[in-house]
Amino acid sequence: MVDVPDLVEQARQGKPRAVARLISLVEGASPQLREVMAALAPLTGGAYVVGLTGSPGVGKSTSTSALVTAYRKIGKRVGVLAVDPSSPFSGGALLGDRVRMSDHASDPGVYIRSMATRGHLGGLAWSAPQAIRVLDAAGCEVILVETVGVGQSEVEIASQADTSVVLLAPGMGDGIQAAKAGILEIGDVYVVNKADRDGADATVRELNHMLGLGEARAAGDWRPPIVKTIAARAQGVDEVVEALEKHRAWMEERGVLAERRRARAAHEVETIAVTALRERIGDLRGDRRLGALAERIARGELDPYAAADELIAGITKG
Amino acid sequence: MVDVPDLVEQARQGKPRAVARLISLVEGASPQLREVMAALAPLTGGAYVVGLTGSPGVGKSTSTSALVTAYRKIGKRVGVLAVDPSSPFSGGALLGDRVRMSDHASDPGVYIRSMATRGHLGGLAWSAPQAIRVLDAAGCEVILVETVGVGQSEVEIASQADTSVVLLAPGMGDGIQAAKAGILEIGDVYVVNKADRDGADATVRELNHMLGLGEARAAGDWRPPIVKTIAARAQGVDEVVEALEKHRAWMEERGVLAERRRARAAHEVETIAVTALRERIGDLRGDRRLGALAERIARGELDPYAAADELIAGITKG
Repeated sequence: MVDVPDLVEQARQGKPRAVARLISLVEGASPQLREVMAALAPLTGGAYVVGLTGSPGVGKSTSTSALVTAYRKIGKRVGVLAVDPSSPFSGGALLGDRVRMSDHASDPGVYIRSMATRGHLGGLAWSAPQAIRVLDAAGCEVILVETVGVGQSEVEIASQADTSVVLLAPGMGDGIQAAKAGILEIGDVYVVNKADRDGADATVRELNHMLGLGEARAAGDWRPPIVKTIAARAQGVDEVVEALEKHRAWMEERGVLAERRRARAAHEVETIAVTALRERIGDLRGDRRLGALAERIARGELDPYAAADELIAGITKG
Repeated sequence: MVDVPDLVEQARQGKPRAVARLISLVEGASPQLREVMAALAPLTGGAYVVGLTGSPGVGKSTSTSALVTAYRKIGKRVGVLAVDPSSPFSGGALLGDRVRMSDHASDPGVYIRSMATRGHLGGLAWSAPQAIRVLDAAGCEVILVETVGVGQSEVEIASQADTSVVLLAPGMGDGIQAAKAGILEIGDVYVVNKADRDGADATVRELNHMLGLGEARAAGDWRPPIVKTIAARAQGVDEVVEALEKHRAWMEERGVLAERRRARAAHEVETIAVTALRERIGDLRGDRRLGALAERIARGELDPYAAADELIAGITKG
């Protein structure tokens, strides 16, 4: 058994090993998970959570790394959570080029962690927020959540951030990609990276058009800025930080931040509750009841909905 | 209200509109869903379900179309379900080139349907098997389930088939891709398409090696065959059908087919039960209880696990 209060205290002091250990505990659904979460709760709420999403090749890792540098420059403690929902089996091993992140490897003010799904749908929707709580409790003032790809889980994870940054790059057919993944619905700040490439201005224009930024908005509405960057040369990155801080201030002024965090907490509770119920049903896997129901379905005697009703009746109230 | 028995009867007679209508009913979680599923149950179990998966660019659509032609040649009624889990918002509109399928558009012995996730995780894991049930009840003797991409949901959907076909093509770095998505764990039959390209033999060799096909196996174990095809020219496709029929016969001899179908039914029931419970929790979304819990979490007074416990206690037994 782990001495949770001691571990939490060490994480508070910024000891990376303690942070790593805590994330492993929450990620692996350890028996002490509840104890950990209860200990973390009063320490959370201080971090500003920024989601970064975009198609492969837009330079997400480079941008994340450049943002880390920019935030470190203004003295913020930074946590990075790199999430790869498309990789059920890698356990993070194939997470792509994290080498650039090694710039920050020796900086005690930066904590970097990679996560993969480990094989079950919804796994990250459940464990990423818990890892964010650990980083938050450990005193990270900014947490960058970088998702690999633009699928549904990525959008879901990114939309759980305080501020969502959508990255694009010129000439990648991003218009269609973005529409496909619905990322145009979640961006609070847009970044067109690799802005020295041909077509950068066209991408900005197209984005402007797609976001309807030319149209009139109600006074006080948030107008998502589009920032051009060359992350590999750290160009434009301070402007991204500025845009983020503006969005944060805007949210704080209007109570939007508190509202988003309540919504995030509600979503988190729902996800955990669903996972717990799913496990309760999963526990029936070896059970004779489920086996018998499956047999009847396979024979065409019963349909799967009627079978599910029987299964649920076993564990729920009326 | 739809006249379900009449609709099912029409589908049995192979009327494509009735089939389409039934799939829409099960996909859209219509109020009559249960009635539909109950009516379908006694008519199912006749179809042989083949999953096709592989990275974009290996020629899945072309291969599926060629397989349809091959099965039609031997007089089988064929259903095709083209599933795109990566597209939460398209509703199927961006499903890629389905034009090739138009070869079969006027053939009454072929039914083709595209599905996308429509926005919630696990949506396809739930609705794809129901659509398969419709095609099965409608008298399709072979159902080809083609998934776009190699992510987790694709693997999950493909692994629910009677036989899983994994498609690869030379020179696409498929080794890494395949390992990443875990598709090497689910293939019953491997197809190296575009076999006229450079590197086809190397791909076969690599695959042989990765699958450990050189190693000794217990007598009677299934040894996944590797078939080379040029689907665009229909070359090798009859050999794929032959490999599929061999696998089917092998499964039937050993009771593996019945076992897989029971496992599939059990998985289906679980998924439906989890979805139903998730909805029950989702119904609490506007509820004051969830709002109050979220507020306390956001303030750091409560952790999300303790909150989930409270939520679950409201709907379950002890």
